[in-house]
Amino acid sequence: MCTALTFNSSSHYFGRNLDVELSYNEEIVITPRNYPFHFRKMPSATTHFAMIGMATVVDDYPLYFDATNEKGLSMAGLNFPDNAHFFPLHDKKDNISPFEFIPYILANFATVDEARHALTTINLVDIPFNASLPLAPLHWIIADQQQAIVVESTKDGLHVFQNDIGILTNNPTFDFHRLNLSNYRQLSASNPTNSLSNKIDLPAYSRGMGAIGLPGDLSSASRFIRATFMKFNAVKPTTENLSVSQFFHLLQSVAMPMGACEISPHVYEYTLYSSCCNMDEGIYYYKLYNNSQIVAVHLFHELIDCSKIIRYPLQHQQQINHIN
Amino acid sequence: MCTALTFNSSSHYFGRNLDVELSYNEEIVITPRNYPFHFRKMPSATTHFAMIGMATVVDDYPLYFDATNEKGLSMAGLNFPDNAHFFPLHDKKDNISPFEFIPYILANFATVDEARHALTTINLVDIPFNASLPLAPLHWIIADQQQAIVVESTKDGLHVFQNDIGILTNNPTFDFHRLNLSNYRQLSASNPTNSLSNKIDLPAYSRGMGAIGLPGDLSSASRFIRATFMKFNAVKPTTENLSVSQFFHLLQSVAMPMGACEISPHVYEYTLYSSCCNMDEGIYYYKLYNNSQIVAVHLFHELIDCSKIIRYPLQHQQQINHIN
Amino acid sequence: MCTALTFNSSSHYFGRNLDVELSYNEEIVITPRNYPFHFRKMPSATTHFAMIGMATVVDDYPLYFDATNEKGLSMAGLNFPDNAHFFPLHDKKDNISPFEFIPYILANFATVDEARHALTTINLVDIPFNASLPLAPLHWIIADQQQAIVVESTKDGLHVFQNDIGILTNNPTFDFHRLNLSNYRQLSASNPTNSLSNKIDLPAYSRGMGAIGLPGDLSSASRFIRATFMKFNAVKPTTENLSVSQFFHLLQSVAMPMGACEISPHVYEYTLYSSCCNMDEGIYYYKLYNNSQIVAVHLFHELIDCSKIIRYPLQHQQQINHIN
Amino acid sequence: MCTALTFNSSSHYFGRNLDVELSYNEEIVITPRNYPFHFRKMPSATTHFAMIGMATVVDDYPLYFDATNEKGLSMAGLNFPDNAHFFPLHDKKDNISPFEFIPYILANFATVDEARHALTTINLVDIPFNASLPLAPLHWIIADQQQAIVVESTKDGLHVFQNDIGILTNNPTFDFHRLNLSNYRQLSASNPTNSLSNKIDLPAYSRGMGAIGLPGDLSSASRFIRATFMKFNAVKPTTENLSVSQFFHLLQSVAMPMGACEISPHVYEYTLYSSCCNMDEGIYYYKLYNNSQIVAVHLFHELIDCSKIIRYPLQHQQQINHIN
Repeated sequence: MCTALTFNSSSHYFGRNLDVELSYNEEIVITPRNYPFHFRKMPSATTHFAMIGMATVVDDYPLYFDATNEKGLSMAGLNFPDNAHFFPLHDKKDNISPFEFIPYILANFATVDEARHALTTINLVDIPFNASLPLAPLHWIIADQQQAIVVESTKDGLHVFQNDIGILTNNPTFDFHRLNLSNYRQLSASNPTNSLSNKIDLPAYSRGMGAIGLPGDLSSASRFIRATFMKFNAVKPTTENLSVSQFFHLLQSVAMPMGACEISPHVYEYTLYSSCCNMDEGIYYYKLYNNSQIVAVHLFHELIDCSKIIRYPLQHQQQINHIN
Repeated sequence: MCTALTFNSSSHYFGRNLDVELSYNEEIVITPRNYPFHFRKMPSATTHFAMIGMATVVDDYPLYFDATNEKGLSMAGLNFPDNAHFFPLHDKKDNISPFEFIPYILANFATVDEARHALTTINLVDIPFNASLPLAPLHWIIADQQQAIVVESTKDGLHVFQNDIGILTNNPTFDFHRLNLSNYRQLSASNPTNSLSNKIDLPAYSRGMGAIGLPGDLSSASRFIRATFMKFNAVKPTTENLSVSQFFHLLQSVAMPMGACEISPHVYEYTLYSSCCNMDEGIYYYKLYNNSQIVAVHLFHELIDCSKIIRYPLQHQQQINHIN
Repeated sequence: MCTALTFNSSSHYFGRNLDVELSYNEEIVITPRNYPFHFRKMPSATTHFAMIGMATVVDDYPLYFDATNEKGLSMAGLNFPDNAHFFPLHDKKDNISPFEFIPYILANFATVDEARHALTTINLVDIPFNASLPLAPLHWIIADQQQAIVVESTKDGLHVFQNDIGILTNNPTFDFHRLNLSNYRQLSASNPTNSLSNKIDLPAYSRGMGAIGLPGDLSSASRFIRATFMKFNAVKPTTENLSVSQFFHLLQSVAMPMGACEISPHVYEYTLYSSCCNMDEGIYYYKLYNNSQIVAVHLFHELIDCSKIIRYPLQHQQQINHIN
Repeated sequence: MCTALTFNSSSHYFGRNLDVELSYNEEIVITPRNYPFHFRKMPSATTHFAMIGMATVVDDYPLYFDATNEKGLSMAGLNFPDNAHFFPLHDKKDNISPFEFIPYILANFATVDEARHALTTINLVDIPFNASLPLAPLHWIIADQQQAIVVESTKDGLHVFQNDIGILTNNPTFDFHRLNLSNYRQLSASNPTNSLSNKIDLPAYSRGMGAIGLPGDLSSASRFIRATFMKFNAVKPTTENLSVSQFFHLLQSVAMPMGACEISPHVYEYTLYSSCCNMDEGIYYYKLYNNSQIVAVHLFHELIDCSKIIRYPLQHQQQINHIN
C-alpha cells in the first residue's frame, strides 16, 4: 500500500512510496500562489501558499497524493481501507472533503501547529470529487521541519495523533502501530551478545544478527516497523545529494518488488514511485519503478505567483548510462 | 555481507550486492582473450575466454569480485568467514589459489557442467596474492544460463552443491540455507485465508499479509530467505530494460542501508554496489550506493582479442535529472 | 503475568494461570449466600449468590483473584499495570472499589448480560482495602456459559469489550490483542502446502510446521496469541475428566517455567497456580507449580446457605504415586 | 514428534516427551541383569546392567523407547523420518539392529565415553523385529551424568555428535539444530533495554519481552530452540521433588496439546507421556496426557538380579484429589 517518512539530515526531507497496482496518471504538479482553490463548502482560496507534489489532475484540479508547500509544510494521504469514515455535512464545522484536504491544509498553513489548531474545527465531509471519482479511504501524515501528526477520520470521529516516529503506513490505526513498536525494542543494528545462556557457545556467524526478528513482509504493520528501524539507525549524511540518496534507501527497504504482493491472480501491488521532498528548498525528487535515476523538480525555479498549475509528466523511461 | 542472484527473464541475468564497510578501489574490468593469466601453480592461460566484471586491479592483475565470460558463465565470490579453509599444495591436484579461482574458471570453461568437472581435481591452495593481501575467506557461486552451483572449501574438503535456488549469501554453509528454506514454505505473495480458526473473525487488514514471517533483518540466513521469496515470486518482464529494473529491485530487497548494520561503533556495512550482468549479451550493469542511475559497460563493444585489461572507474556521483 | 481462558467442552469451563513472583497466601474460598458483603460505598449484600474461587483472606474478607458463582458467572482479575486507572468518588455512579469488583458482580448477577448492564452505572473508585494493601492495577474478564466480556478502567474511562475469543492476558488493552490476532491468521494446526513457490522443492521435514510464526515467549501479547491458537484448535473431549485435562493442557501452553521470566536478578515470575472451574457444576480444580496432581473443591458439597466463608488451604506438596 | 532432555539439578535427570497419534501399548519395563538379551547378529548378553524405561513388550522382548541403566547411562530413540537410513550386514562391524540398539548400549556400557567407543565399530543393520514390525526411522540421544551424544545413521553413514545442549528433537539432523540456535542467541529471560533507538520511547509493557522471537510452534526445529531456552534459564531446585517438578515443566513447554498438531483430518499428534528418570537413583517418573499426577517406579526396589522382565502398566486414569 504505502509508506511515508520524514528524515532530518543535511536538510529536512519528506517523502513516500506509492504502492499500487495501477497508475492514476500522476505527475508532478506545482500549484502557484494565485491558482484559485475552490472548495465545496468553504470559501475559495485565491491567494495562498504555493505547493509542489505528486497529483492526478482532473478538470484542472490537482488531486494531490503528497505535497509540500513553500513553507515546508508537507502532507501525504495513504490508503486506510475499512477504517476511514467520512461524515455528513456538519454546519458548525469547517467541512472539507478528503480530496480537498491536502490543498486546504497546504494552502493555508505554515506549520504543524497551525494545522493542528485548524483540525479542531474540521469535519471531513463525504463529498466525492464527482460521480466517477468516489472518495478514497485515506488517512494523512502532516509534517513540518520539527514534528509530524497523523489525521484519521474513523466512525467515532476525527483523531489527531502526535507522530514522534515520523512514519505512516496503512491499517490498522496509528495508535496500534505506535504501540506495536514496543515489541521490537530489543532489535539492534549491531550484533548483540549471547544472552540466551552463557553456558553454551553461540557464535554470531553473520553480521546483522542484531535485527533478527525484524519483519520482512509487505504488510502495513511490518513496513511500519521496518521503516522505523531503518530510519532511526540511518546514518545522516551532510550533503544534499547524499541525504537524498539515503532517503531513497530508506524507502527502498519498504518498497514492493513486482510480484511479491499479489492482490488477485496476476495482479500485483508494487512501488510505482518513491518521492523525497526537500522541505527547506522546495525540491521534489522522485524515482519510478522502471527508472531508477532520480528526477528533481524545483518549486522555486518557477514563477510561483502565477495562477495556472504547472505540470511535469513522469519520466518513466529507464535512463541507463552506457559507458562504452 | 553479500547476496548473489541469478534471474531468468527476457535474458539470463547474474548479479550481486557487495556489502562492505569500505571500498577496495573496485572498478569495471574487461579481461580480453589474450591477456596472459599467470597462475602460481598451473600453466599460464595465454588465450582464453574474455570476461567482464567488478575487480580491484593490483599489479595489472584483476582481482575479480564477480564476473561473466563471453559464453555467459558467471561467478562471484562472497564472504565466508570462519568456514572458508584453504589447503597446502597437493601435488596430485590442480592447485588454484582463491584469488585465481574466478579467472581460472571463467578463462577456461563455458558452462557449469565443465566447471563442475574441473572442480573434481581442484585444490584451493592457501597462497596469498602477496604479503599485504592475505586470502579472503570466500565461497563462490558459478552459474550459466541453465543452472548454478556453489563451491565451498572448508576444513573437511572441497564441496560442490547444486544450487537450484540460484542464490548465495554468506555463512553458514550452503546446505544450511537450502534446508532452512523449508521453514518458510508457508509464506505466500497473496493473502492467505484464515486457517487459525474458522470460528473467529480475523480480517486481513492489509495486503501483503501472506508473507508475514519473512525475515527483514540483514543476517546472511535472512537475506537468503528474503531473496528467495522475492525472486521466485517476481514478475518476469519481457524487455531488457524492464528485466534489469526488476533484477535491481530484487537486489534492493536484501540491500543494506547505511546505519542498519553496525559492525563496530560508527562503522557500518552497506551495499557499496549492486550489479546485474546480462549473461547472453555480456552487458555489465551496476548501481552504487550514492548513484542510483544504472551504468552499463558492454563486453562486446570492446576489442576482446587484445591483451591488455580495460578498466572503467565507477561513476560514484549521483546523476540527478533536474527537470526545471 | 496471567492468562485467563474459557473453554466449552463436555461442560463449560473457566480458569486461569496466576503468574507471579511470590505467593499471597491464596487459598480456595467459598463464600456462602448469607455471608454479609459490606461495600465501601454501596449497600451491603446480606443475601446473594454463593461463589467459589481463589482468594487471599484478609480480616475475614475474601480478596478474590478469580471466582465462579452458583449460576456459573465467572470473573478473574489480571494484572494491567500502567494502564489501569481508578477514579475518585462519582456521586451519580455506583462506586465500587476494584477489590470489591469480583464480589459485587458475582454476588449480584447471574449472566454476562446482567453484568454488562450493571457496568453502565459503575465507577471503579480508587479506595484501597486498607493502608497497607494498595489497589492492584487490574483488568477483568467476566464470562458465563455463553459469552465473555473484558472490563478495563483506564484514564479515559471504563471500557467494556465483547470478548469473542474468551481469553485475557495483560497489557496492552484488549482491543490491541484482538486486532493483533489478525497477524496470525495464516497459522494452521496442519502442515500447509508449499506456497512460497511451486518451482522449488521445499519438503515439510516435520509435523507441526503449520504453526511456524506462533510466538513462544512469555509476554502478554504472545500468550494471548498462543492461548488463542491452542484453544481454537483444541479437541473437545466428552467427559469431565478428559475436559479438565484438556483445559490444563491449554493453560500449560502459556505457563511460565521458573527461570524463563526474570524480573530482577534471581527473581522469577512463574505460574504459581492454574485453575479450571466447571461453571455448570461449581467444581473448582487447581494445580500448583510443585504439585501437578489436580485438586478439586466442590461448591455444592458445602452448605451454601450459611454465613461464614469456607477456606481450603492449597495442597502444595507434590503427590507422587510410587508404584513399587 | 518428540523431545528428549537432560537436566542436572539436585540429581541428574533424563527424560522425554513421546508425541504420537496413537499408543503402542507402552508400559514401564525393568529388565533385570540376568534377562538374556539375544541379538540377531551379535552374541547374547546373559548377564548385563539392569535397566528401567518405557517399552512395548513383544514376545517377551522389551522394545524400549527410552531407558536408563543401573549406572545411570540413559538413551532414547526419537523419530527421524526420511533421514534415518540403516544398512545391510557388514561383516567387519558389530551389526546391531535399531530395535536392539538401546538394549545393546545400556546392557553393556556405563558411560557415554564407553558407548562412543563402541559406536566406532557399530553398523546399524536393517533387520526388522519381525515381518509386521518394520524398523522405525529413529535417531538417538545417549547421556550419562556428565555429557550427551547424538547418534544418527543416514545414507552417508553413522554420525556421532557431541551434544553440549543435552536436547534432541527430530528432523533435520542434529548439526542443523545446533547451528540454528545461534539465530536465537539474542533472546533473554529478562527484559532487554531498548536497543532499537534511544531517540524514541519504547516502554516494555509486559514482563517476558526478552524472549520475543522464541518460536512457539510444534515443529522439531522450534521445539529444540524452545527447550534449550527453557532449560538453560531454568532455576535448579535443591530437592528431588522440586527438581522432578521443574523437569516436567520444561517438558511441558514443548508438549503438544491435543488438536494443535493435526497430521490428517481429525488425527492429532499429542504428548502421550512425559518421563523423567533420576539417573543417579534409578527412579523413573512419568505423567500421561490424561493423568497429570506423577507416577514413580524404582529400579532398585526390585530384585534386579533376576531373569524375567518386570512390567508396570501405565496409570491412565486421572487421579483427582477431591477435597470435599
